[in-house]
Amino acid sequence: MASKLTLSSPNSLLLQNPIIHHQNHQLLLKPTTKMTSFSILTNKVKGFSIKCAATTTPTPLSHSQDLEERVFNFAAGPATLPANVLKKAQSELCNWHGSGMSVMEMSHRGKEFLSIIQKAEADLRALLNITEDYTVLFLQGGATTQFAAIPLNLVKPEDSVDYVVTGSWGDKAFKEAQKYSKSKVIWSGKSEKYTKIPSFDSLEQTPDAKYLHICANETIHGVEFKDYPDPKNGILVADMSSNFCSKPVDVSKFGLIYAGAQKNVGPSGVTIVIIRKDLVGNAQGITPVMLDYKIQAENNSLYNTPPCYGIYMCGLVFDDLLAQGGLKEVEKKNKKKADLLYNAIDESKGFYRCPVEKSVRSLMNVPFTLEKSEFEADFIKEAAKEKMVQLKGHRSVGGMRASIYNAMPLAGVEKLVAFMKDFQARHA
Amino acid sequence: MASKLTLSSPNSLLLQNPIIHHQNHQLLLKPTTKMTSFSILTNKVKGFSIKCAATTTPTPLSHSQDLEERVFNFAAGPATLPANVLKKAQSELCNWHGSGMSVMEMSHRGKEFLSIIQKAEADLRALLNITEDYTVLFLQGGATTQFAAIPLNLVKPEDSVDYVVTGSWGDKAFKEAQKYSKSKVIWSGKSEKYTKIPSFDSLEQTPDAKYLHICANETIHGVEFKDYPDPKNGILVADMSSNFCSKPVDVSKFGLIYAGAQKNVGPSGVTIVIIRKDLVGNAQGITPVMLDYKIQAENNSLYNTPPCYGIYMCGLVFDDLLAQGGLKEVEKKNKKKADLLYNAIDESKGFYRCPVEKSVRSLMNVPFTLEKSEFEADFIKEAAKEKMVQLKGHRSVGGMRASIYNAMPLAGVEKLVAFMKDFQARHA
Repeated sequence: MASKLTLSSPNSLLLQNPIIHHQNHQLLLKPTTKMTSFSILTNKVKGFSIKCAATTTPTPLSHSQDLEERVFNFAAGPATLPANVLKKAQSELCNWHGSGMSVMEMSHRGKEFLSIIQKAEADLRALLNITEDYTVLFLQGGATTQFAAIPLNLVKPEDSVDYVVTGSWGDKAFKEAQKYSKSKVIWSGKSEKYTKIPSFDSLEQTPDAKYLHICANETIHGVEFKDYPDPKNGILVADMSSNFCSKPVDVSKFGLIYAGAQKNVGPSGVTIVIIRKDLVGNAQGITPVMLDYKIQAENNSLYNTPPCYGIYMCGLVFDDLLAQGGLKEVEKKNKKKADLLYNAIDESKGFYRCPVEKSVRSLMNVPFTLEKSEFEADFIKEAAKEKMVQLKGHRSVGGMRASIYNAMPLAGVEKLVAFMKDFQARHA
Repeated sequence: MASKLTLSSPNSLLLQNPIIHHQNHQLLLKPTTKMTSFSILTNKVKGFSIKCAATTTPTPLSHSQDLEERVFNFAAGPATLPANVLKKAQSELCNWHGSGMSVMEMSHRGKEFLSIIQKAEADLRALLNITEDYTVLFLQGGATTQFAAIPLNLVKPEDSVDYVVTGSWGDKAFKEAQKYSKSKVIWSGKSEKYTKIPSFDSLEQTPDAKYLHICANETIHGVEFKDYPDPKNGILVADMSSNFCSKPVDVSKFGLIYAGAQKNVGPSGVTIVIIRKDLVGNAQGITPVMLDYKIQAENNSLYNTPPCYGIYMCGLVFDDLLAQGGLKEVEKKNKKKADLLYNAIDESKGFYRCPVEKSVRSLMNVPFTLEKSEFEADFIKEAAKEKMVQLKGHRSVGGMRASIYNAMPLAGVEKLVAFMKDFQARHA
């Protein structure tokens, strides 16, 4: 059952990418491949195979090969995205669903984009079981813009608000809140280099605090809340930027959840805010209109032009997470990856060290150091040669950091662990 | 000099997209095209031609065909982008320049993205001849966020600032400025339905106004400044969102220029601010850190994660505008398109009407109505059938609007004009 495709040519023919991708049956031949002769054998069961005599140059790369030549990207954010999501985005970049337009070109008030943002919201609500008494907003400016928007929208300048500071991001959120409220740090892990989460009983909450703010996962320090404190008086507010949609969360425990998209759910430029509806509508008079949740809620995030393409990408990721079976399944995969990596560190007899208290180690961001710190630069350089990139720790803490978000495949962590053992064998 | 590629096959072979794109020599065959037999003739001078017997289904669409099946998109923004730019973005979406990553996945502090944002800024500086005494910022939140950021950064609450209101956007900018300054409307075109620009001599500027704000092109009303007023006291500030990079501009006349990217230079989610360096550093205490130009300038727009993919797309557009010969050449093309369309309106003996005073008609946004307004819905519907979409006027003014930004090809305007003449013949 084999058919033969032959090129009999005395003169050169330039075609795109000498690969048969048997999944979607596309025939692509590498750019500037000088074909002198080639033949394709096809078999419905086995898929394609190709033989060809060709001299090639690697760039510009195209489809199938893109995905083969991808690195394992351990960046803390922007971070790796699911390969199938990127491929889908690529296939419809110039013409979305036969609309004759790219998503980047669509009016944000047209039926095409409205269907995209509405599906994105519906899928996110399904993933996190978000009830109708919460509003979901797709905004801009990153979590850092929310550091101001939260006190501006939720309290008056004379109101007290509490911050539990378990890392750099919680600290930044607190400092910004000082401009718009009587904000107070009721616990800080700074003296212990942000390696712990306090016991909730020990927290001395301000009796009349309007909200209690936490950073659910500290990207730089790798400290993650496994459970959540109960505010004595007000509501619980959480920055979930770096563990958003990495596991199930009981949204009803929170008054407000916010997250930059660029870790687990999309590209940078989209910030998601999930807020209880009864908390909307109390913005201070000095609040910029774009930071006013009431304006954004009344306009379904379309008061002005939203980051349409970013929202579209988030929608593709949400769809993919649902297809994986939802956040319970995603959490299982994330635990498996994190266990593999933390075990490799803990079983290295001190060659590798993770400073974070075991019970609160992040499933997303794994910081570690070398006992022989003089080898850290080599570790990062050699890993990069093996196509494992962005392993350098944040400039404020040094060492290494492996961010293993939803989209990091198990194979990436397995490869890293194998490399770590090999590196240790060579440097112990 | 012809060579022959033949497929002799008794059984079916699924390939991707039955098109030979002779510009980049890529062989793509339509998805689920059932090939029974085909042959390709190639000739180095004439490029490729293809004959094949195939039964096809249209989706999912892919490369070459995407561009053939694109509509003419007259949306006011997000708006049409250059087809070659979209195609380049598509080709490198999964793997940028062999980095093994999508631009969406890159750390904003890594060398790859830094090279992207630095080239984007350099190319923009070249396009507009921006000197070193101006800072260029790539921000988020749209022009609407700048409506607040401008007074917050440039003046104190007790300072006077003047606004010339030639349309809805200028009016929104004025209203937001009232929160942070003593802002005053010194001229408004509202009573004349925003169809005029005032004579500059007639402007009664506030003697101690810290700045004079204009909207260089009103997207909704199609009114464009052809020259710029001189502020008596302070600096000139201009919202150029909808005519940014559509023609040369003498940046030195302005203290601050700002623009949302989603009309002429990229997707939504990127806002460009060009500000004279001596004006940076005076933000009011209540300014959210993300809106503080000093923080953004000191961090080269990387205080937090910027909208990386949007900035990359803007960079591709800037590169394309330079390749076209720069903004003088771009302006020539825009004038030719606008003349063609306005002439068709003016020569229609009143069948089509543009309310805007001729001397200040926008080269970018062309609003028009039908003398027989009962046919406007048909006009829009029939045009859409002819693959000319988004011609409905803004809900606040009705009628039609054709936005003909840089990326709208002359062929799109020619097709619209031909349709207008045909429609008139059928309805006169």
